[in-house]
Amino acid sequence: MKKGIFISVEGPEGAGKTTVLSLLAKELETEGHKVMMTREPGGIDIAEQIRKVILNTHNTAMDPRTEALLYAAARRQHLVEKVKPALEDGAVVLCDRFIDSSLAYQGYARGLGIDEVLSINQFAIEQMMPSVTLYFDIDPEEGLGRISKNAGREVNRLDLETIEFHYKVREGYYILMKRFPERIHRIDASQPIQNVYEQSAEKIKKTIDKPV
Amino acid sequence: MKKGIFISVEGPEGAGKTTVLSLLAKELETEGHKVMMTREPGGIDIAEQIRKVILNTHNTAMDPRTEALLYAAARRQHLVEKVKPALEDGAVVLCDRFIDSSLAYQGYARGLGIDEVLSINQFAIEQMMPSVTLYFDIDPEEGLGRISKNAGREVNRLDLETIEFHYKVREGYYILMKRFPERIHRIDASQPIQNVYEQSAEKIKKTIDKPV
Repeated sequence: MKKGIFISVEGPEGAGKTTVLSLLAKELETEGHKVMMTREPGGIDIAEQIRKVILNTHNTAMDPRTEALLYAAARRQHLVEKVKPALEDGAVVLCDRFIDSSLAYQGYARGLGIDEVLSINQFAIEQMMPSVTLYFDIDPEEGLGRISKNAGREVNRLDLETIEFHYKVREGYYILMKRFPERIHRIDASQPIQNVYEQSAEKIKKTIDKPV
Repeated sequence: MKKGIFISVEGPEGAGKTTVLSLLAKELETEGHKVMMTREPGGIDIAEQIRKVILNTHNTAMDPRTEALLYAAARRQHLVEKVKPALEDGAVVLCDRFIDSSLAYQGYARGLGIDEVLSINQFAIEQMMPSVTLYFDIDPEEGLGRISKNAGREVNRLDLETIEFHYKVREGYYILMKRFPERIHRIDASQPIQNVYEQSAEKIKKTIDKPV
């Protein structure tokens, strides 16, 4: 049975993830691949219910470890109900954010520890790690600047404190790239979007064409 | 600062946990201890929301690992919001079921693996393990028989398959007793309730009176 390929894309808001993923999906489909683009909770009912608990604005007492466990739970359900069937169907799965977001945000930037957040996520995903992960790297202020020029998007919550936080998240991704050099590939997302797209396509095609 | 003592009680339905815990609480209060009796989710709003997702009868697609992560998340929040403040206040906390329920039910009986379920629960509880755990041991059929005689309680869901499951859970607790012999103490719950109470009180008082 032909098995699909699992690809994740990471990077801050304003790095161009959505645009590039849409272009990649179109290109791969034109070449005859089945493609599924997704992002947690991805319309999976149980994962959406869990996400609602995480995002409920009344839940101000939520402990960071509770939050990390809930993200891992939602991840598991999205993986089992949506990603796994698509992979078994031979699709290329393009996932906008996955395990590395939890490692960089909760594990590193929020200080829970990369190893500790990794351990609960390994429980959640078992062996289903992405074959390749693209990290769209851009200076957080530049990324936020792009968002603020985009009339359709909100920037209200982004104050100085969160900019510092975004720098910390970026540090986290740099640590992850050193730790998983075979899997995570840095894409310079400060380049024009066409270049970001082409370099992403090149990395992904190398993975897809690799003989199993 | 005087720190409290964290005690958990495990065992199947019909083993007498609730009755004995209430007697213990009364006795300890009479002796001048602050006592808090609790059981997850214990009225903690976020833990209750998580428990609702677990118990939602529409969530038939829930993966066992999602469920285990949700239990760990609810455990964390109940611990942080309810158990920890009581311990800091110097109370004896009597918790009806805790980590060992997850290890015996999900880890062993459901086959997820004791070590794997232990790892996500260690993330959830950090260093806050109970000082002592009483395991009320009773033949599952005998326990279920007691429930069926108790007019106020439901037995509908208990069919032959679940009796087998309860035997498997008991096996799980036996493995845990071998693994944590310092912490988990077996109480023969087939004895008259007064004996179960007295032996439980003896174990607990040893723990409370132990010089720190």
